[in-house]
Amino acid sequence: MDLHDDMVAMGQRALEASRELVRLGARKKNTILESMADALEDHRDAITAANALDMQDAAEAGLPEPIQSRLLLSEPRLDAIIKGIRVVAALNDPLGTTISRWIRPNGLEIVKQRVPIGVIGMVYESRPSVTANATALAIKTANAIILRGGKEALRTNGALVAALTKGGDAKGLPPHAIQFVETTDRAAVRELVQLQGMVDVAIIRGGDSLVSAVTEMARIPVIKHSKGLCHTYIDGSADLEMALNIAENAKCDSPGVCNAMETLLVHRDIADAFLPAFAARLQPHGVELRGDPQACRLVADMEKATAEDWSTEYLGPVLSVRIVDSVETAIGHINRFGSRHSEAIVASNEGAQKAFVQRVDAATVYINASTRFTDGAEFGMGTEVGVSTEKLHARGPIGLEELTTTRYVIQGKGQVRD
Amino acid sequence: MDLHDDMVAMGQRALEASRELVRLGARKKNTILESMADALEDHRDAITAANALDMQDAAEAGLPEPIQSRLLLSEPRLDAIIKGIRVVAALNDPLGTTISRWIRPNGLEIVKQRVPIGVIGMVYESRPSVTANATALAIKTANAIILRGGKEALRTNGALVAALTKGGDAKGLPPHAIQFVETTDRAAVRELVQLQGMVDVAIIRGGDSLVSAVTEMARIPVIKHSKGLCHTYIDGSADLEMALNIAENAKCDSPGVCNAMETLLVHRDIADAFLPAFAARLQPHGVELRGDPQACRLVADMEKATAEDWSTEYLGPVLSVRIVDSVETAIGHINRFGSRHSEAIVASNEGAQKAFVQRVDAATVYINASTRFTDGAEFGMGTEVGVSTEKLHARGPIGLEELTTTRYVIQGKGQVRD
Repeated sequence: MDLHDDMVAMGQRALEASRELVRLGARKKNTILESMADALEDHRDAITAANALDMQDAAEAGLPEPIQSRLLLSEPRLDAIIKGIRVVAALNDPLGTTISRWIRPNGLEIVKQRVPIGVIGMVYESRPSVTANATALAIKTANAIILRGGKEALRTNGALVAALTKGGDAKGLPPHAIQFVETTDRAAVRELVQLQGMVDVAIIRGGDSLVSAVTEMARIPVIKHSKGLCHTYIDGSADLEMALNIAENAKCDSPGVCNAMETLLVHRDIADAFLPAFAARLQPHGVELRGDPQACRLVADMEKATAEDWSTEYLGPVLSVRIVDSVETAIGHINRFGSRHSEAIVASNEGAQKAFVQRVDAATVYINASTRFTDGAEFGMGTEVGVSTEKLHARGPIGLEELTTTRYVIQGKGQVRD
Repeated sequence: MDLHDDMVAMGQRALEASRELVRLGARKKNTILESMADALEDHRDAITAANALDMQDAAEAGLPEPIQSRLLLSEPRLDAIIKGIRVVAALNDPLGTTISRWIRPNGLEIVKQRVPIGVIGMVYESRPSVTANATALAIKTANAIILRGGKEALRTNGALVAALTKGGDAKGLPPHAIQFVETTDRAAVRELVQLQGMVDVAIIRGGDSLVSAVTEMARIPVIKHSKGLCHTYIDGSADLEMALNIAENAKCDSPGVCNAMETLLVHRDIADAFLPAFAARLQPHGVELRGDPQACRLVADMEKATAEDWSTEYLGPVLSVRIVDSVETAIGHINRFGSRHSEAIVASNEGAQKAFVQRVDAATVYINASTRFTDGAEFGMGTEVGVSTEKLHARGPIGLEELTTTRYVIQGKGQVRD
């Protein structure tokens, strides 16, 4: 059999599994999830050994340090994964919920319900925790899942899936509810995102090149976790100390993640007071600053920003800085260069807050808080499979509810249409 | 300028318009909608004259009768369009609604809000009413819209858009909120569905070939109004008279539409009583029956169905008929051949109803009612721009709420992440 046939067969099995999953009640699914968590405990050694081999290959291949660091599945990280599954089991079941219900003049009762999506194709890069998080959320929402992780994590992901499947099997998870693409052939991704009528949605979590390749190849709906080019705007009315804390946290808490700040916008009325103090705060973090001419005049060792800086997601210790003359200019800058992920205003003036919230186009908009909070766990959603910068279906953290869809059930007494 | 540049410029103008539309309040938008309806009244003669020219061309080109019939914009149809806009104006504003709100242990207040999508690309075939319905729903939801109708309706759609724009302008609708693709070059559709970063969603309403071409070309999210291969299942426990009424209505009320029945499934316990009576009911409607061997034994002049019949959307006076031995067989048939649009069971047995509702995978599932009710107006949603058989974002009638998205607004007091 060739790759195409293999992937179609996998899609068909997933579809069949999804037809069985809809019949499982909440308690049954939670028992399965607990058993999956238990199985990860039981297979701890095999998983850790598989990860050691992946890590060894990564070191030999000289993969960049951030990739090696993401790939590592340490004991505390495995503990967190296991705990995460138990947290998902304990969450309320989002299915079967009535979203709305009304009765038409002709007596038809219309009920809008939350139901599983069906089959989810999950395409992601190195972090192995995604394997367990996505699987747990999929099973909780009665979806079948096909996992396609990064090739660096092949052994780790394989060991995780083997344990998760064993745990599920023991408590009656339908066969093939969890499937794992074992080939590292990139053509498998193309096949996966073209399984129309079998896979209902592809969730893509990765860098720009993966996301844009998938967008081009896909024939099924795609939810993207792509880049985060996030801004923090310090209004003239901001509390200085609060602004310093928020901007420092947004940039320095974890510069390599999607909700970190990449560009700082500062109102000219507060720039004199704020910028030199902020530069001093950043000093110990070793962040390189690149500013517009006005900003460079206020901070001694600031590089000059080029046009390219405003549209660059550094994912590292670099920050671009622009001084603006109004909240309108800040909004215009963000709507032009932002990736619609997470945007923050620090201000005490309510008019500025209101204008910012009304007109900035982003999945999450913060008033007087750090953009670093855009995260399923921080939102209280348990876990997530990524953060969507799409506008359709899922926007922001992709948690349980985002892995469901709706449908209408209409109860009649023989009504026909005139 | 070439087509590509033209379409990019159109996308850019739409994006700018969308940034202005978010600033309009509910009352302002309703005033604009009323003015758009007034303008259609005022331009009635020009619209009717444009339609007469389109109708003349259609007749000369020998277009099929159903297409000519859809193209016709009679006075009562224009009245209905105008009334439809006023109905939309009177609906509750879906924007600004708080969907949920919670406070995290660290004091962050998270509010999930309903907001406009941004820019909608509407690609549709002949029916000119879609031009006005889609525009009205887009403006009510503060979205900019780019309309690309069928070439047969070019003059009619152009006249409608001219009037709608004039009416909007008079009351402060932002420039370019409504744009119309005037070229009939099919390449314009390709350009439209590739306007990443400008057009947020394409809504496609048309036949199989348009929908699959767009699916292949699109680089932006697509919501499809595609085919409706709908079934009605008559359970052994069905009330005979109710079953006859529902099946007759589902097939004969309007055979050319997407929510009409294409395949009838009958439980063997009721087939003897039901099928001959049903064949007699259909006689005056001139519906051709194509059945499996068992069904053919019960009705004298029934053709034998071929394998192809089960996957054919006739959109006309033909019906395929299969006798099944259980509700499970009916569910299996529907999940295999159905288009996930509208599916009905006629049964008094609650176990059969429950199994059908739980396991049939469709946007709308009916118990003891005709599938013909799948329609925005029949659901009480005012109007619609189509019926989505997608599972993501919009499922079933695409009304006001489906033209919105959500976002999170987070209010803090200086919180940073540890």
